[in-house]
Amino acid sequence: MSNALELECANAIRMLAVDAVQKANSGHPGMPMGMADIAAVLWRRHLQHNPNNPGWLNRDRFVLSNGHGSMLQYALLHLSGYDLSIEDLKQFRQMKSRTPGHPEVGVTPGVETSTGPLGQGLANAVGMALAEKVLAAQFNRDQFDIVNHHTYVFLGDGCLMEGISHEVCSLAGTWKLGKLIAFWDDNGISIDGHVQGWFTDNTAARFAAYGWQVIENVDGHNPDAIHQAILQARGDTTRPTLIACKTVIGKGAPNKSGSHECHGAPLGRSEVDAVRKELAWPYAPFEVPLNIYAAWDGKAHGAVLESQWTERWDLYQAAYPELAQELKRRNQGVLPSAFGERTSAAIAQVLQTAATIASRKASQNAIASLAPFLPELMGGSADLASSNLTLWPQATDVNTPAGGNYIYYGVREFGMAATMNGLILHGGFKVFGGTFLMFSEYARNALRMAALMRISPIYVFTHDSICLGEDGPTHQPVEQLATLRLMPNMDVWRPCDSLETQVAWTMALESADHPTCLVLSRQNLQFQAHTPDTEGHIRRGGYVLCKESKSVQVVLIATGSEVELAVNCCRALEEKGISARVVSMPSPFAFDRQPLAWRDSVLPPGIPRMSIEAGVTDYWRKYVGLEGLAIGVDTFGESAPVAELLSHFGLTVDCILKVIESLLNPARPS
Amino acid sequence: MSNALELECANAIRMLAVDAVQKANSGHPGMPMGMADIAAVLWRRHLQHNPNNPGWLNRDRFVLSNGHGSMLQYALLHLSGYDLSIEDLKQFRQMKSRTPGHPEVGVTPGVETSTGPLGQGLANAVGMALAEKVLAAQFNRDQFDIVNHHTYVFLGDGCLMEGISHEVCSLAGTWKLGKLIAFWDDNGISIDGHVQGWFTDNTAARFAAYGWQVIENVDGHNPDAIHQAILQARGDTTRPTLIACKTVIGKGAPNKSGSHECHGAPLGRSEVDAVRKELAWPYAPFEVPLNIYAAWDGKAHGAVLESQWTERWDLYQAAYPELAQELKRRNQGVLPSAFGERTSAAIAQVLQTAATIASRKASQNAIASLAPFLPELMGGSADLASSNLTLWPQATDVNTPAGGNYIYYGVREFGMAATMNGLILHGGFKVFGGTFLMFSEYARNALRMAALMRISPIYVFTHDSICLGEDGPTHQPVEQLATLRLMPNMDVWRPCDSLETQVAWTMALESADHPTCLVLSRQNLQFQAHTPDTEGHIRRGGYVLCKESKSVQVVLIATGSEVELAVNCCRALEEKGISARVVSMPSPFAFDRQPLAWRDSVLPPGIPRMSIEAGVTDYWRKYVGLEGLAIGVDTFGESAPVAELLSHFGLTVDCILKVIESLLNPARPS
Repeated sequence: MSNALELECANAIRMLAVDAVQKANSGHPGMPMGMADIAAVLWRRHLQHNPNNPGWLNRDRFVLSNGHGSMLQYALLHLSGYDLSIEDLKQFRQMKSRTPGHPEVGVTPGVETSTGPLGQGLANAVGMALAEKVLAAQFNRDQFDIVNHHTYVFLGDGCLMEGISHEVCSLAGTWKLGKLIAFWDDNGISIDGHVQGWFTDNTAARFAAYGWQVIENVDGHNPDAIHQAILQARGDTTRPTLIACKTVIGKGAPNKSGSHECHGAPLGRSEVDAVRKELAWPYAPFEVPLNIYAAWDGKAHGAVLESQWTERWDLYQAAYPELAQELKRRNQGVLPSAFGERTSAAIAQVLQTAATIASRKASQNAIASLAPFLPELMGGSADLASSNLTLWPQATDVNTPAGGNYIYYGVREFGMAATMNGLILHGGFKVFGGTFLMFSEYARNALRMAALMRISPIYVFTHDSICLGEDGPTHQPVEQLATLRLMPNMDVWRPCDSLETQVAWTMALESADHPTCLVLSRQNLQFQAHTPDTEGHIRRGGYVLCKESKSVQVVLIATGSEVELAVNCCRALEEKGISARVVSMPSPFAFDRQPLAWRDSVLPPGIPRMSIEAGVTDYWRKYVGLEGLAIGVDTFGESAPVAELLSHFGLTVDCILKVIESLLNPARPS
Repeated sequence: MSNALELECANAIRMLAVDAVQKANSGHPGMPMGMADIAAVLWRRHLQHNPNNPGWLNRDRFVLSNGHGSMLQYALLHLSGYDLSIEDLKQFRQMKSRTPGHPEVGVTPGVETSTGPLGQGLANAVGMALAEKVLAAQFNRDQFDIVNHHTYVFLGDGCLMEGISHEVCSLAGTWKLGKLIAFWDDNGISIDGHVQGWFTDNTAARFAAYGWQVIENVDGHNPDAIHQAILQARGDTTRPTLIACKTVIGKGAPNKSGSHECHGAPLGRSEVDAVRKELAWPYAPFEVPLNIYAAWDGKAHGAVLESQWTERWDLYQAAYPELAQELKRRNQGVLPSAFGERTSAAIAQVLQTAATIASRKASQNAIASLAPFLPELMGGSADLASSNLTLWPQATDVNTPAGGNYIYYGVREFGMAATMNGLILHGGFKVFGGTFLMFSEYARNALRMAALMRISPIYVFTHDSICLGEDGPTHQPVEQLATLRLMPNMDVWRPCDSLETQVAWTMALESADHPTCLVLSRQNLQFQAHTPDTEGHIRRGGYVLCKESKSVQVVLIATGSEVELAVNCCRALEEKGISARVVSMPSPFAFDRQPLAWRDSVLPPGIPRMSIEAGVTDYWRKYVGLEGLAIGVDTFGESAPVAELLSHFGLTVDCILKVIESLLNPARPS
């Protein structure tokens, strides 16, 4: 097609973006206007996708890391023939529309990940490109490049300034992700204005230092230049590529282009009119001429691409029926048929062994017991394999030509978590990654994005309390457990022994719609008394671990390493003739979802309650109320051996028995 | 001195580290052994400090960003003559000792910042170097280089892998921090083993891309090479310098050096013996020969340095008495004498104006009202000045030869927060920085480090709830307010109107021992009815805003934008003959610290309570108990206009009145 028509296609994007933002009276018109030409060339000439089947296995992945430019993506999807109508575009940023303020996966067909928090889309793209590489290594055979697609990502100055861009682009270079192609919208503008006051990196040199191919000084408004750059990028399959595109933000807006004024607000009526004039665009808002639709529509070409692939797939399936079935299963996110049987056997084994070990060790045992029949498992740690205990006998480094199932992320917690999201969003993998619970904070917003996207990464967070000992307050979690539990749709497990750990791992792997934090001890934890019902009880998130001897007078609720302490307190109370119950509450998330009858049977209304957990206590008021007692750690920790720490912070039977008096003989609450 | 003696000095560090780790049976010996030679040359030949007066204004700053090597710093401090005895070293990692697991400022004389969470020490150092540069620009005159020191930072591979290193080293380049000198401990080892599997950056090229001077391939065990590199680093005052030092981790341990085995655990008895032999070190554990002490002791030289400076200072003081007094005041962190008077006047003005404006706007007004008499104020934002409203009329860009009082951090939230910590730790500044409340998550562990260090940065976190509207769930905070409140020693203010905002700003500036989050609305907030007592009431963190008409039947507790809603609910209830009270609770931190009598007078025991806050509700159980009602948002948000969001999430008078029935006519709690 002619460049003239392609430029007109880009103008269609511009006008849809401008008009939708204007109608919503909210949004970011400048970026879609600036990147429209790049997007038009990429989507029209290169993108391997089928708008009729947005979930096609071998599609190219496209990520808009500068997600505030969401209207760019919505316009692309609409024009390409995805199931996203003009009516949808008119509902931009309205309640429950398919065109929300930032792209959301699961809401809009063709959106691969939710973006907006800067830098994370780029990290997701790195995860997707890694997923493609590993799946290709595992499943492609001879002539059958069944898995063979690119991952394209758009990003802005903001993404490049964020630290996470360093973490994941370094990894992408190390992993030689030759099918990852990033387009930098080098417009020189961020919200505060011209970036030269705060962004002076030589970005090309920086990316070269990561081992990327860098294509510099591409005119982002010249279709041929863009096309040539993409060809060059695709030509080097040994390195990821950064295409640095010089663009003008708000290109087409005669009075506001090139300035941050067109970044985060509607252009305004008169400037919208001026854009129409500038672009010689005679059509009404949301009107796109048929020749543009015809030039854009990707359905026919997509159908051809997919049918060519399906032909290969059929031959592949004939030649390698088991591989094909396995890839299909993994791509659909279905667990192996033997999963239930194998996990039950593993749980039975743990029950029989009844080992008193650290829950991080129990976690490693769980991984080792389950990994052999979960080829989709992709483990890893942010440089703490020997502390998090995330390795297992069959683990192999992913950074090999044959692909592997373990990722050495280096000291990059945020990058790890956001890459995990990308691996999962691509499909084909169950993913876990480890670090110290404290450093969940470095990764926190990527955990939240997983919860928001309803995907199910598993975090192995070890060294879960002051009981890690001598490393001291910088490394001792105090509030992290409670704060993770406050995140919507995040399941946080803090198991008290190897059985609860094994069950937690099982449930984490079963989850298809929420992430799971496994919060694990450094120190050994006593194996608790369990009954044949215990697995079912644990699955409910909270259950009676030690039943009272007679009518219950006090309920002790505890998690993780403090369950053992609660059990010892319970025994001491019973010796004093006080009838006490211990409730183990490894997952408040699961417990809160139980029927009232279960919750009442575990926590009988009206009976005094006390929580024991080596962390901030405010969280526990939701279970113990104003009148109950919450024992924990409400200050920062200290560097000392663990026994001294427990004594210092009052986490001993003696200390707790002393305060429990006040619960059973209440003065008035304060 | 001879290199031989200097190498012996380094061996003294090695042995102190090895023996202390062995005695504690915990710690990281490998890094101190690897960096001992570099440390010896830097501390003995270059460091401008006075062990007798660790707080001397013009001292060089030294930061151990790889804080797990804490014994390196403790050995340096001890040998240099700081008040840190051999007995202190023997208490390494013991309860309440002066030698905790990671360096902690305020605990050990000569430690400038608490390190351990990787990358943040480097960021603190960038803040310190910026502080020096700005203070020098503000206070130095003619021949008087009263402020003139270097900032030295040690860092490891871990620091370089962390994303925050990208953010702050980019800024350091932009700011041309010519007196910042970083030593990279390039030992090729991280916890997971040899780094080439996960760290393949060309770090020299990367730092050159940031505009740094890079001195490559320095033999980190050759005193002359180290010395020459430091001279070269100091010779270029226009750029920060990275000295890339090739070192051997655990240098001196014959069987474990060069391997991650000596990274995070004691060497073990037999290897310790082998080190003694290898280093030809005939002395007992913790014994240092007198000639080494004599060669190390920095007290005399430090006294000379300081007295030379004091001479200059006296002349400066004579020539510029007001400047000298001002620098002294700022260095001591004392507020201007007129502070109380000026803040009272500003509060009176706000009360009189009674403006209904967004609290972010009220915050900007507060800044504008206070900044003119607070020359120590250093503001900034992570590329959201026009959204956070962090600029004021006299704000000037810090990145100018004259220095300024406003930092354009770019899109670097974590780097911003950790740089702020460094600015404060250096001394001379009151510091605030802004971003969206959501992106507090990117910075979270730096906020925690501030709380742990008991310093008092101020965070301007705007766009504080779903009420930011169309940007949708990626940008709408839900759990952030509650999770920030759970951080020990963090004061979180969510003011309901311009008066509470002004008081919150005043208290945040008054704080010397805790950080403050100012959580602010995008949308306008009704100015509430206030009395002459109100300032005092607000200072208590929670107070009765609307008093009930007769005996109180229900207490509505609210914060920020929901106070207006609570007031409207209260009116509607009173119309129905139900006597209701509204408690505004802008700071639970302050409220919880009030005497019981105040707390009971605000929240009378036994009266049903309801909380209203557009965020997760579990937090509020600490005030409303099991029986109370907590109204809020326990799911992720939606992209839509604000009025629709409020209706969708039930944050309207009608919705709340409906549920309040259940509180006043309770069935049993669930």
